[in-house]
Amino acid sequence: MNALRLEPLLSAYKQGWGLEQAFYTQEQIFELEWKFIWRKYWLFAGTTADIPKAGDYFTYQANNDSIIIIRGDKGEVFAHYNTCRHRGSLICLEERGNVPKLMCPYHQWVYNRDGSLFRARLMPDDFDKASHGLHPVHVKVANGLIFISLAKNPPDFAKVSSDYSPFLSPYKIDQAKVAYRKSYSLRTNWKLIAENFRECYHCGVAHPEYCNAVIGANLRETADDVIAERRVHWKNKGLATETVDFEKDSFHFAIRYPLRPGVLSYSLDGKAVAKPMGDHKDFDAGVLGLVVYPNFWMDSVSDYMWTMRVTPIGPSHTVIDLTWLVDSHAVEGVDYTIDRLTDFWRVTGEQDWELCENNFRGVESSRYQPGPYAPSENDVVKFVDWYIQRMREGAEEK
Amino acid sequence: MNALRLEPLLSAYKQGWGLEQAFYTQEQIFELEWKFIWRKYWLFAGTTADIPKAGDYFTYQANNDSIIIIRGDKGEVFAHYNTCRHRGSLICLEERGNVPKLMCPYHQWVYNRDGSLFRARLMPDDFDKASHGLHPVHVKVANGLIFISLAKNPPDFAKVSSDYSPFLSPYKIDQAKVAYRKSYSLRTNWKLIAENFRECYHCGVAHPEYCNAVIGANLRETADDVIAERRVHWKNKGLATETVDFEKDSFHFAIRYPLRPGVLSYSLDGKAVAKPMGDHKDFDAGVLGLVVYPNFWMDSVSDYMWTMRVTPIGPSHTVIDLTWLVDSHAVEGVDYTIDRLTDFWRVTGEQDWELCENNFRGVESSRYQPGPYAPSENDVVKFVDWYIQRMREGAEEK
Amino acid sequence: MNALRLEPLLSAYKQGWGLEQAFYTQEQIFELEWKFIWRKYWLFAGTTADIPKAGDYFTYQANNDSIIIIRGDKGEVFAHYNTCRHRGSLICLEERGNVPKLMCPYHQWVYNRDGSLFRARLMPDDFDKASHGLHPVHVKVANGLIFISLAKNPPDFAKVSSDYSPFLSPYKIDQAKVAYRKSYSLRTNWKLIAENFRECYHCGVAHPEYCNAVIGANLRETADDVIAERRVHWKNKGLATETVDFEKDSFHFAIRYPLRPGVLSYSLDGKAVAKPMGDHKDFDAGVLGLVVYPNFWMDSVSDYMWTMRVTPIGPSHTVIDLTWLVDSHAVEGVDYTIDRLTDFWRVTGEQDWELCENNFRGVESSRYQPGPYAPSENDVVKFVDWYIQRMREGAEEK
Repeated sequence: MNALRLEPLLSAYKQGWGLEQAFYTQEQIFELEWKFIWRKYWLFAGTTADIPKAGDYFTYQANNDSIIIIRGDKGEVFAHYNTCRHRGSLICLEERGNVPKLMCPYHQWVYNRDGSLFRARLMPDDFDKASHGLHPVHVKVANGLIFISLAKNPPDFAKVSSDYSPFLSPYKIDQAKVAYRKSYSLRTNWKLIAENFRECYHCGVAHPEYCNAVIGANLRETADDVIAERRVHWKNKGLATETVDFEKDSFHFAIRYPLRPGVLSYSLDGKAVAKPMGDHKDFDAGVLGLVVYPNFWMDSVSDYMWTMRVTPIGPSHTVIDLTWLVDSHAVEGVDYTIDRLTDFWRVTGEQDWELCENNFRGVESSRYQPGPYAPSENDVVKFVDWYIQRMREGAEEK
Repeated sequence: MNALRLEPLLSAYKQGWGLEQAFYTQEQIFELEWKFIWRKYWLFAGTTADIPKAGDYFTYQANNDSIIIIRGDKGEVFAHYNTCRHRGSLICLEERGNVPKLMCPYHQWVYNRDGSLFRARLMPDDFDKASHGLHPVHVKVANGLIFISLAKNPPDFAKVSSDYSPFLSPYKIDQAKVAYRKSYSLRTNWKLIAENFRECYHCGVAHPEYCNAVIGANLRETADDVIAERRVHWKNKGLATETVDFEKDSFHFAIRYPLRPGVLSYSLDGKAVAKPMGDHKDFDAGVLGLVVYPNFWMDSVSDYMWTMRVTPIGPSHTVIDLTWLVDSHAVEGVDYTIDRLTDFWRVTGEQDWELCENNFRGVESSRYQPGPYAPSENDVVKFVDWYIQRMREGAEEK
Repeated sequence: MNALRLEPLLSAYKQGWGLEQAFYTQEQIFELEWKFIWRKYWLFAGTTADIPKAGDYFTYQANNDSIIIIRGDKGEVFAHYNTCRHRGSLICLEERGNVPKLMCPYHQWVYNRDGSLFRARLMPDDFDKASHGLHPVHVKVANGLIFISLAKNPPDFAKVSSDYSPFLSPYKIDQAKVAYRKSYSLRTNWKLIAENFRECYHCGVAHPEYCNAVIGANLRETADDVIAERRVHWKNKGLATETVDFEKDSFHFAIRYPLRPGVLSYSLDGKAVAKPMGDHKDFDAGVLGLVVYPNFWMDSVSDYMWTMRVTPIGPSHTVIDLTWLVDSHAVEGVDYTIDRLTDFWRVTGEQDWELCENNFRGVESSRYQPGPYAPSENDVVKFVDWYIQRMREGAEEK
């Protein structure tokens, strides 16, 4: 696809209406998205709780690239392309592990945790080790959230870090504990998931459990009084409350909103499911919601943090990786059980995955056409605007 | 593929010889076939026996389109594209069901059975409901056989209806009962199935059960006397007997031919497998064979009707949906059993599916070349002629 | 892909460094490889031990072509495209069998073992049988090794036959017995397998069993004295010892090298696993290694022969077919067991398959770049040279 064919699709976009079919279904658009968005912006990879000790690593498969995220000797977080500089073999074969150094399993070239080449056996004397380190990947750590960028010059991350710091610091992610992970492989386009997570027009019928937990989610109740009262309360406790909205071209968002009075956590019965996390002393912190485009969603309550990493595999194939974090001192079987901890988001998430898959099947129709968003879907319009703007920029740069 | 590349393939066609390889194996040809044939002609979807009551529906997946076929309040048959006019979600998720109205599971927009938009909650006052009904699909019902067309202006269907009426009316499909359904997913091209079903050159060795049931099918016996005698008999009983052959550019066919004397039904033992269907009083009506290009084949005996719906998924992938219909009053376990009812066509069909899959594997060879059809394959030549003519018309229209 | 796009990839090749990514991952390169290499050179299909009796056949699927390799009435070996000249159906449906003649299962056209059309029933009198034989495939048999070529004019095979004859004749393949076959379907590119099998830089760590059996394989020991001593010994016994190296543009290779003193066979314990094969009287013949580009590898010890047939299915998909041959008089359970016979190459091979799959996953990275081969990988450089030369020739011929 050349710019000429992308242009009419971009021009057809009408604010307040959905995207043209090609944006959801065409392989060529998918490839342009990797170029214009996914290889340009910051991608959530995991948290420092995934790699607590020096030498701990995990790998993240982004498009054709396996990325190694590894803790350095002094607690630093490094990210490297997982491809040996000798014959290109994958170096880390497992999804997670701990290594003294990174050794290629093929011919045993050995790299330091910072990616520099430590040893390449049986190479000639004039071999230039210094120029054969692992290719580096940009990394930023925001209060324990690890973001990587495959870009040459990624966008500035400073505002994300500073905006998120007051929200995230009480959670003490660096000392948190990964309680559970679960992945889903969905037949849908990643943007349909993004749209789904930016509106509650569907919540009333689709998410009874969620609507039980969150006042106003059904769009029938008013939550204004509760919100106003809670905000004063949170401020008095020193909790951050100022919504960080998507501004022109920014790619991050934060909000704190209340649970239904009497509800203590995101749980099926409204009761707490773990001990308060980090600096939290009670179950009073409401919900902290974060979004970083294009692939990060987080919802945290006082007793646990739930992160969602979205990875597009193809126009019709998206992988979702979910992680539940609890306080570092929480003991499974004593302070929490996996079932109670994960019930709420497994139930609610699986409702969404089904909606998103059915949405995709209908969008494939030859007669699909962009429809009008409802007023309650205004945040979806903002996402779609952001997306179209990125694609326009990409098309112009070419 | 542009017209320039299709042209040489069309020009290479020599009547009496097979098609060039590309017609069977190329993705681009497959896409042109949907454009020039499958989205232009009438496709068999099912029968009114599939949706006896108001609100009964079934869905048919044709290429990327899921189509809803639903009974209206007064017994009408409607067909709609299964994609919501709001965000495009699939509306009917199941293959069959009954609904008071059609409600999208995502945001609960509600459509009437005729496709008009009944309600869209929380939309602005100035939202134009009238212009947001489901996209309609053309439907024709010929004595209970439901055909749909995805074309803007489908070809005239009147002659099919009038030609078929005398043949079909005794079967009373509208009151018939669906006894059994079975689907097959085959690794073959749809045209190889069409060719297979237009000749009996292969029957003698491949279909011993079929040759037992049908006199002359082995191409070694003469059936002329039996046919002549039967025709007089059928006419006297008021049964339609005049063959409707494929004429220039027509796309439908009907024939009545005799079973071997003493054979009462398409069954492995030659005995009846159900009670006579509709107006039939005995097992004397021979076989009624119908074909509507590109996707409908039917063989009916006095006691049951067998329909075959062919759906191409890709150049090398075709789905076959078979349905067995019996008289509305036939009771399973009393008047028929599923095994005896379906044995004959499961055995015979599966012999054909294997031939068609092996045919495809050989056609993929780099040295495949069109071979000469045998004189007994003359009807295959007619099909191939029809096909080439449709592709030529399509190429010229572009 | 046109020559313009292949050219820069070819130009980027720097001797002593790996191939550009596209050569491993691009579908278009894969298709050019079939054109420039796989359909031009000789492909190992199997051995005469696979088809000992007249009428014995096996099929080999090479790209879209199923090829029938069959023993004629007088012991000849014929190869035919497995596609009927009538409607194109596959003729032999099984991977192996014995047939009096080749009969198409669709309409029973019958071909002689030499491919000529014997009978086509119910065809018109003027049908020209003589011009409807099966399309032939070139065949060469080198002391029992069967090679086919899909080329119009394959390269001269005479030097392969004459070079191999002194090495192979003691094995008496024509009278050998197929003891075991095993296939692997790998997610890797065929050239990564070829490269893997042309160097022992990886052996020291990856192949402990192999290094136990072969002196010097770990690149730490010197094997020169042993080799020199053995060569004299072998010559005295009349065994061929002169290495046939890849010369400019040649595509075959042969070498005899010693096992570690005291080791009698390729086995996990170093002991013999079968009786000496063919004319061998003891376990003293070392290892005979043959390679014929692009798809044949063989390693034979005194008591068994191990052949490897490589078949690329796609850029990222390769099938490996392994066969173990033993002496015609060896009796399973008495002279050998399948486990002991196959342990060594199953263990060693599976170590390699894993390395080759991991190599491919890393080569897919957006940051993969050709790295420098080590001095011990000099034979890999020769293979890559040969490959690039073939692709250049192909590009120029177009």
